[in-house]
Amino acid sequence: MKLVRYGKPGKEKPGLIDANGQLRDLSSVVPDIGPEQLGDAALAKLRKLKTEKLPLVRGKPRYGSPVANVGKFIAIGLNYADHAAESGMPIPSEPVVFTKANSCIQGPNDPVMLPKASVKTDWEVELGVVIGTRARHVSQKDALNYVAGFCVVNDVSERAWQLEHGLTWDKGKGFDTFGPLGPWLVTRDEIDNVQKLGMWLDVNGQRMQTGNTKTMIFNVAKLVSYVSQLNTLMPGDVITTGTPPGVGMGMKPPVFLKKGDVITLGIEGLGEQRQEVVPFKL
Amino acid sequence: MKLVRYGKPGKEKPGLIDANGQLRDLSSVVPDIGPEQLGDAALAKLRKLKTEKLPLVRGKPRYGSPVANVGKFIAIGLNYADHAAESGMPIPSEPVVFTKANSCIQGPNDPVMLPKASVKTDWEVELGVVIGTRARHVSQKDALNYVAGFCVVNDVSERAWQLEHGLTWDKGKGFDTFGPLGPWLVTRDEIDNVQKLGMWLDVNGQRMQTGNTKTMIFNVAKLVSYVSQLNTLMPGDVITTGTPPGVGMGMKPPVFLKKGDVITLGIEGLGEQRQEVVPFKL
Repeated sequence: MKLVRYGKPGKEKPGLIDANGQLRDLSSVVPDIGPEQLGDAALAKLRKLKTEKLPLVRGKPRYGSPVANVGKFIAIGLNYADHAAESGMPIPSEPVVFTKANSCIQGPNDPVMLPKASVKTDWEVELGVVIGTRARHVSQKDALNYVAGFCVVNDVSERAWQLEHGLTWDKGKGFDTFGPLGPWLVTRDEIDNVQKLGMWLDVNGQRMQTGNTKTMIFNVAKLVSYVSQLNTLMPGDVITTGTPPGVGMGMKPPVFLKKGDVITLGIEGLGEQRQEVVPFKL
Repeated sequence: MKLVRYGKPGKEKPGLIDANGQLRDLSSVVPDIGPEQLGDAALAKLRKLKTEKLPLVRGKPRYGSPVANVGKFIAIGLNYADHAAESGMPIPSEPVVFTKANSCIQGPNDPVMLPKASVKTDWEVELGVVIGTRARHVSQKDALNYVAGFCVVNDVSERAWQLEHGLTWDKGKGFDTFGPLGPWLVTRDEIDNVQKLGMWLDVNGQRMQTGNTKTMIFNVAKLVSYVSQLNTLMPGDVITTGTPPGVGMGMKPPVFLKKGDVITLGIEGLGEQRQEVVPFKL
């Protein structure tokens, strides 16, 4: 299934994309797509619906984040060897874990706002993993059973605040609008092999990132297992799994986002995002 | 007001401590003490209640975290000059910001569980600041107006996972049970000067930390203002503001928590916590 949330910010309704690519309204079935709707039993119920009987949604509504009420938004750094190299960092011997503020989450096509006085705002196409079932110290072998599905994430990053303002990365990762998710939450049964998905990101139509989840240093099962040793993963938590090469910081000379730039990105089977970069405003 | 949540884990009811120190049931007035109850208007309504008419709660119920549904649990590092020195770190020129997983939050007297194979679990008495009103780029002068109140936090920390497992601190800060909050959320009108509160922490009855919020490097108003530039603070977010000297890591030789240890801690006007240290269990 491809689950979505559509409508105005803060007023999104649940929906799904049917086999013909049409948006259907799920609001008579579930109140939202959030922690309570992401477990295997809840998803199985949705899967049994006769989608052709659900109301078609007319027009082209905005999409919100396909997951409501994300608790923890956990991020993995330097998880592609080539990206670690372009960042001037050693290949990690275990996953690098940091946190994005859940208040930065937004729809896939909402504008990305430059932070106040930012000069180093950068892009990162990433595979997002949405937890469906509470997971605590789960083995790598079992880890994918705790996953509801996957989505595209742009792990927008302000490099000065990430790297030049103290000892941790979180400052540069959680500015408002820095977490576009979606368009779809694609349930895990629809993805044959999550470690074989092409991914790309363009800025103003120019290809910047080309990658494939097959070159992850730590695969999705390992990451879910690893993070579940650090803290209990809850339904609706999101783990974003690192970016392949081609970020602005790694260019020679570095290139960063400016007002009016348009970022487009996508992952095979998970859909595409498009963000216009807008200046800071209060 | 001193607001609390009491009862079994996950089933807590809202309450308040009256002028005689007695626990009164608030569940006929509000469903919980969470983001919707923390704004100035909501708190003003509670303040008008005739507390002597609220039902008395018999017995000695467990206290939960005095805030439900914490969104972001943001932590400040090295915010007391003496603690930075004992940690072997330079005094920061701007606040060090990291994140504790909100899944680590628990009641003030619930046991602290050692992580699997942990050998460096440590204590940190801290002043917690509970956000009441959405705050975005607020000035230092206005910052306290966005605060609902204050509580005691034990920022339990596993030093090996904080400092020896990669580039960020978050791994060592968010293990389950590492965020005891409470017992009370003391509303800000009850605290004359938040920068003049004594604080202490004992392990097995031996004084380890003695401090006062007056020696913070960055005061509460500065921290709320600073973090509100990084991401929008939401009602129910908690900022824990750093610890004074006396953590186990700073002892010569270092001392860490072991099974059976009892941690007691408190802050002037905000109440006391007591945690027994228990071994890891699945």
